[in-house]
Amino acid sequence: MMNYTEFEQCGLKRSMEVLSGKWKPLILHHLFHEKEIRFIELWRKMPRVSKKVLLEQLQQMQEHRIVERIERNDFPPQVAYRLHPDTKSLGPALQMLEAWGKSR
Amino acid sequence: MMNYTEFEQCGLKRSMEVLSGKWKPLILHHLFHEKEIRFIELWRKMPRVSKKVLLEQLQQMQEHRIVERIERNDFPPQVAYRLHPDTKSLGPALQMLEAWGKSR
Repeated sequence: MMNYTEFEQCGLKRSMEVLSGKWKPLILHHLFHEKEIRFIELWRKMPRVSKKVLLEQLQQMQEHRIVERIERNDFPPQVAYRLHPDTKSLGPALQMLEAWGKSR
Repeated sequence: MMNYTEFEQCGLKRSMEVLSGKWKPLILHHLFHEKEIRFIELWRKMPRVSKKVLLEQLQQMQEHRIVERIERNDFPPQVAYRLHPDTKSLGPALQMLEAWGKSR
């Protein structure tokens, strides 16, 4: 039997926890389709999310090494986001999940 | 921009919704490793879940065509669960997610 620590460390459970939620799948969807996106562009692409909530989601994703934050020293300075290198390998898995979800 | 209906139908969001949660990843983990599992065996393999909660999770997964319920007319009659054929194709994706989750 899987004991509780093994349960907590179940890889599938941990990935689902950090990748699911109301907005994260959509953020992933956009970041997989565009190498890099400025915060304001990402916000415009996402219906009904507030800037505050989007920023919180992105900060969580940064902590979990799913996205990286980039500062562009343009005028005015710009903040953009891209996938963390560790997450690029998930592309095929997320594409399968996206296709499976559409077929439901 | 993705309008709200497209957002609601984002395949990745829908799969994450029906596959994530506290217990579903673990149920999937077991069902991918064993062709078929009797309810009582599945319950014993899962630390700290009540029979009532496990049954609810399985019923939801049945509605989403993720698992199938099988009745064995043994004595006493037995109930078992197995993956729904539609979900078997997700095996590779879930394995990638499991490995990725472990590496975090």
